[in-house]
Amino acid sequence: MDTKEKVVKLEAGEASSRVKGSRGISIFDLILRIVAIVGTLGSAIAMGTTNQTLPFFNQFIQFQAQYNDFSTFTLFVIVNAIVCGYLALSLPLSIFHIVRSRAAKSRILLIFLDTMMVALLTAGASAAAAIVYLAHNGNSSANWFAICQQYQDFCQRISGSLIGSFVAVVSIVLLIILSGVALSRH
Amino acid sequence: MDTKEKVVKLEAGEASSRVKGSRGISIFDLILRIVAIVGTLGSAIAMGTTNQTLPFFNQFIQFQAQYNDFSTFTLFVIVNAIVCGYLALSLPLSIFHIVRSRAAKSRILLIFLDTMMVALLTAGASAAAAIVYLAHNGNSSANWFAICQQYQDFCQRISGSLIGSFVAVVSIVLLIILSGVALSRH
Repeated sequence: MDTKEKVVKLEAGEASSRVKGSRGISIFDLILRIVAIVGTLGSAIAMGTTNQTLPFFNQFIQFQAQYNDFSTFTLFVIVNAIVCGYLALSLPLSIFHIVRSRAAKSRILLIFLDTMMVALLTAGASAAAAIVYLAHNGNSSANWFAICQQYQDFCQRISGSLIGSFVAVVSIVLLIILSGVALSRH
Repeated sequence: MDTKEKVVKLEAGEASSRVKGSRGISIFDLILRIVAIVGTLGSAIAMGTTNQTLPFFNQFIQFQAQYNDFSTFTLFVIVNAIVCGYLALSLPLSIFHIVRSRAAKSRILLIFLDTMMVALLTAGASAAAAIVYLAHNGNSSANWFAICQQYQDFCQRISGSLIGSFVAVVSIVLLIILSGVALSRH
């Protein structure tokens, strides 16, 4: 019986140190979520307000480039908005994890949703990146010409708006790994 | 003391049922990995062997489309090969989890690597999808014309080779969620 009591005491001590570690992880989780919210929101706004009208035009056409001329960029804005909304909604759950660091089911729910969201966001961001690359370099085999010579401002805006998304992707990947570490401490 | 013994017995029973559940999860994990290997390998081979020479040519140019005319498709093949290689290397660890279902650290390692790989594969696959979309539909604002009228076979091959990648993405997302569930059972 003596050994059993020792085991129980040891387990109790271990549990309390685990709870402290889990709390640290939960706070880091909250910070990463806020970083990802800022990143996706910035990306969505930067891309969503991008348009450029060239200073010259002829009788028939005014030369103008807008983000929604490219369906990929429209997708990019929608995906960033969805992920930003999801992250904002997940903040209360993240705060709940700081208070109750032994919650397991809600962490699995978050791993599930975070994984979905990282896949969605990566898809949107890299599809946009592929088009941005094409806008910069063109493709000689397909006779697609680089449009960045004409639309310089436009190209700078769309290139810059990718950064926020990729920061958010890295943050959410870290979130998933942290959730895994927190789950293994139960 | 009586209640303590009861608790210990209950815990032992719970633990054995948990081990059974974890074993089921580990077997499903192995199956999903094999599905993802087949998907990425198929994608890499289908894309990597794609080229089409048009039956007409003039004095100067022979019209030909190859996957490596597009840097995005080269990236797609490389990413699929990397993920396929990683998944093959992770199989022994997955089998180890069937035998020892209480292993926690190696599961966290797998969550970490799987999350990296799903981000990489999603990025490659959706960048390729963006270019395939452009090849099918073109973009009138940027004066990029659809090339699929000329290169029909080429377009069918590159479109088809995306399927395997997206199947693999879904499999790896499921893998991450399963690892989370398995970790929470410890």
